[in-house]
Amino acid sequence: MNSSEQKNTAILLISCPDRKGIDTALTRFVSEHEGNILHFDQHVDLQQNVFFMRIEWDLDGFTVPPEQIHAHMAPLALDFNMTWQLFFSRDVQRMALFVSKMPHCLFDVLARVESREWRVEIPLIISNHETLRPLAERFNLPFYCLPVNAENKEVQERKQLELLQEHRIDFVVLARYMQILSPLLIEAYPRKIINIHHSFLPAFPGAKPYHSAYARGVKLIGATSHYVTEELDAGPIIEQGTIHVSHKDTVEDFVRKGRDLEKTVLGRAVWAHHQHKIITYHNKTVILD
Amino acid sequence: MNSSEQKNTAILLISCPDRKGIDTALTRFVSEHEGNILHFDQHVDLQQNVFFMRIEWDLDGFTVPPEQIHAHMAPLALDFNMTWQLFFSRDVQRMALFVSKMPHCLFDVLARVESREWRVEIPLIISNHETLRPLAERFNLPFYCLPVNAENKEVQERKQLELLQEHRIDFVVLARYMQILSPLLIEAYPRKIINIHHSFLPAFPGAKPYHSAYARGVKLIGATSHYVTEELDAGPIIEQGTIHVSHKDTVEDFVRKGRDLEKTVLGRAVWAHHQHKIITYHNKTVILD
Amino acid sequence: MNSSEQKNTAILLISCPDRKGIDTALTRFVSEHEGNILHFDQHVDLQQNVFFMRIEWDLDGFTVPPEQIHAHMAPLALDFNMTWQLFFSRDVQRMALFVSKMPHCLFDVLARVESREWRVEIPLIISNHETLRPLAERFNLPFYCLPVNAENKEVQERKQLELLQEHRIDFVVLARYMQILSPLLIEAYPRKIINIHHSFLPAFPGAKPYHSAYARGVKLIGATSHYVTEELDAGPIIEQGTIHVSHKDTVEDFVRKGRDLEKTVLGRAVWAHHQHKIITYHNKTVILD
Amino acid sequence: MNSSEQKNTAILLISCPDRKGIDTALTRFVSEHEGNILHFDQHVDLQQNVFFMRIEWDLDGFTVPPEQIHAHMAPLALDFNMTWQLFFSRDVQRMALFVSKMPHCLFDVLARVESREWRVEIPLIISNHETLRPLAERFNLPFYCLPVNAENKEVQERKQLELLQEHRIDFVVLARYMQILSPLLIEAYPRKIINIHHSFLPAFPGAKPYHSAYARGVKLIGATSHYVTEELDAGPIIEQGTIHVSHKDTVEDFVRKGRDLEKTVLGRAVWAHHQHKIITYHNKTVILD
Repeated sequence: MNSSEQKNTAILLISCPDRKGIDTALTRFVSEHEGNILHFDQHVDLQQNVFFMRIEWDLDGFTVPPEQIHAHMAPLALDFNMTWQLFFSRDVQRMALFVSKMPHCLFDVLARVESREWRVEIPLIISNHETLRPLAERFNLPFYCLPVNAENKEVQERKQLELLQEHRIDFVVLARYMQILSPLLIEAYPRKIINIHHSFLPAFPGAKPYHSAYARGVKLIGATSHYVTEELDAGPIIEQGTIHVSHKDTVEDFVRKGRDLEKTVLGRAVWAHHQHKIITYHNKTVILD
Repeated sequence: MNSSEQKNTAILLISCPDRKGIDTALTRFVSEHEGNILHFDQHVDLQQNVFFMRIEWDLDGFTVPPEQIHAHMAPLALDFNMTWQLFFSRDVQRMALFVSKMPHCLFDVLARVESREWRVEIPLIISNHETLRPLAERFNLPFYCLPVNAENKEVQERKQLELLQEHRIDFVVLARYMQILSPLLIEAYPRKIINIHHSFLPAFPGAKPYHSAYARGVKLIGATSHYVTEELDAGPIIEQGTIHVSHKDTVEDFVRKGRDLEKTVLGRAVWAHHQHKIITYHNKTVILD
Repeated sequence: MNSSEQKNTAILLISCPDRKGIDTALTRFVSEHEGNILHFDQHVDLQQNVFFMRIEWDLDGFTVPPEQIHAHMAPLALDFNMTWQLFFSRDVQRMALFVSKMPHCLFDVLARVESREWRVEIPLIISNHETLRPLAERFNLPFYCLPVNAENKEVQERKQLELLQEHRIDFVVLARYMQILSPLLIEAYPRKIINIHHSFLPAFPGAKPYHSAYARGVKLIGATSHYVTEELDAGPIIEQGTIHVSHKDTVEDFVRKGRDLEKTVLGRAVWAHHQHKIITYHNKTVILD
Repeated sequence: MNSSEQKNTAILLISCPDRKGIDTALTRFVSEHEGNILHFDQHVDLQQNVFFMRIEWDLDGFTVPPEQIHAHMAPLALDFNMTWQLFFSRDVQRMALFVSKMPHCLFDVLARVESREWRVEIPLIISNHETLRPLAERFNLPFYCLPVNAENKEVQERKQLELLQEHRIDFVVLARYMQILSPLLIEAYPRKIINIHHSFLPAFPGAKPYHSAYARGVKLIGATSHYVTEELDAGPIIEQGTIHVSHKDTVEDFVRKGRDLEKTVLGRAVWAHHQHKIITYHNKTVILD
């Protein structure tokens, strides 16, 4: 039913200095080998003179076998000085979840995976609390509780990293994990750790943004999904949303209303990431279709 | 300051049956003549097998003189069975306004034109009432009052058509005109007459949509900008918007809140049209960047 | 943690012909018995001359025992010709779910109940398919599969009604049930059956609204939560939402994007209903805080 | 046509420490003198224990003459320790506009006033540039150009203050004035100077917020209307809005799209202010209907 299941496509994500003829070269590469282009989207940052492209084509009938595409692309990529990534829609992405005590984002993510809205597997869930273990077990998902405090942080993060590597994790989703990751993890998964922050960043970074928003008297609250970088809540933004609040709303109402926003914004970000639609540069994202 | 003023670009809008190599052929056409592509957007309707493209390139340095581009493109267009249009950003579009008694959309359009947000001229305003003549005069714009009733409709529309042709009008904006146009005008300006309807179509077509929305007890009201076709409020939709209303809002509140929506939605539609971003097919619009 | 748990309040929902002194009489009733008003919201429909009010007060310190409030209110209600309902926040509402094959709304509702966002119990889930039984079982919820077809509809609906009555159900949520209810059920639970329809009603009622929306070429899709009445998709609207779509979105994209909207809109409607914030009249809702 | 024109009502805005019986006392005050309450809205900040109310009633039939209402209210106000304001819908508010070079907000405000959407007069426009004088003159509005620089700021602000006082200004709208006001003016018009800032505050206060938003790579831009206080862009927020942007949008696109948001957000704020719907406290606004 879900079209992503039946697809057998290759996806190229490319960025390089802008130069005449890039798109011609790339579409020709696919066309010449009988590839049927299904999606083609490009962007040029004229200020920075950078070219971005996502191209997705049907592998049925494509005359280059999947395992040789990389080698075929290499000279072209070299010629144009490309940063590039090649993905196959048949490969199921392996996603790790980091959670804490709040269940709403975890629930929502599990629902999307179970109902095959996303083409991902969840080899493991990592938490610093036992709270959500029963929920994980109900979905038969391995749950590792690694409580983190000031003293054991480095040790626990090493264990987290080992778990991620052992389970061959492709990307990590912090589903309201509430802990700051150290460079160890961030550098091991660059632009592969997605966080959901419960404010419209750059407003209200850090802890308790709903309380800060309430104190400031804002008329809208937001949520931001971004890639985690070493600076807290300052990584490339993938998706944002806001909704109106009023003087009638208490902090508890902000929290309740914000949950729906967090779920939706995180959902869209993970969709874009696992469908290989995102290229990052200069601490920004380009989201191609 | 407004970048649209300084630009000297050519814009191609193309639709044709989807076939391998179209985009390669088109980008090569521009590249081969030293054209620097500034915007390139394409879309394929996989169900209908139709290819759409907008390509905009800098004419500075382009080796084909503007007046010969058409001839150069012709064989390619024939080869791929293209429906195509060529525009130059230097050409100022000539826009006619049709108004009735309500001033808010007229005011908003005049403000955008005056402040050079849009690159258009307004050679004339046509109305079926005298109400807005003072406003037109304040902006030194020719104002033709052609009252329309059941008996004189055909005569008046002929006059309207003559005026449009005489002033070499490129496209028409119905800024809350409140009259149904007959085929005479619609056929003379196919996909060139833009209406703003004060509901989220297809809900509440026809007269008094705010009253109908109020009677139905909806929790959001909307506005829709679309190209005018012979079937009332059923033409290709360009842009839509909605805002929340509550039980506290009276019909008058709907009207007041809706005005802001109408202005914004119409504004976006005219922007897309006059920047040559819209292709229509099967009673739909493709809006390319 | 969730403030609704600790509250011990009484809630009065009132509508009556508008007359001077109603609010004075009602606030005095509460004040005179030492009740501390926590929420007070009123509305007057000046066209229809109807007065609406929701008043919520703390029962701690209130000098009238809960079981006697009804008797105390009766003369006042008679005097002002009120239609009125009295609720206690301590009473957990008993909600039945009707589902079909699609899991997203069921998942979302279960997540809200499990995490105590809502103060409701789910005594049973009714479905016309076996599809979602495993999900119900994972949450230890009784699941009754009553396949409905043209021949057995009346028999099955009688069984549904018996189940609802046997489990003392307060209200019913159709979480994408995809069957039209007959008057038997609707009359047994007037303004107590909440549906989520996947369009911005009154546009696209009935089956396959996303397909109709796609065919029409709309630029936004919506969801509507409403009370079920005998006329299909025409009952009092509780909550609506819309999001933008573009020519790039296929019907499958509409379905995917729409799911998030359905979950959110249904979630807000059930919140308002089970917090006793909704009064219906003239096929509309007044939603008081 | 515009209902606000025909109304002959009194409006009370009240805040005071929360205590039992306030609303009873107030609604009784109106009812006892045969006043027909048209709008009644209240709010209690349970954390701060503050009560807020707006009550609007028809003066036709009210047995206390308008000029004596103040004296009648005084004992009640004293009793409950109220901060209160009394307004009459017949009084046309006198609004001063401060502008700089950008015309879009000025245009939009003039359009609303001209079309009687708002019940205000514009006795004067003050600017630090000559740019918008022709526009002011087209609407026959007095235009005072008082260029401000570091040296003459105090002198010019004294002149501005004199002009405001001489023209008996009720409130001031900074329609993209782009200058920081000094305490002299702010203290003379406390909670009576409305600014529109082109970001979703508290993100991007100060100069060039669109540029900062672009640099940060946000996925939504915003606008905030707030009362001016001595701390820059930190006064009580009246209204906010956001719209989505993408990697395709340049800073110029942010500016263009943001204009519509600024107009709408400022429009709603001025509506709420001049309809006497706003009470401020603790650097926040309560907006009552």
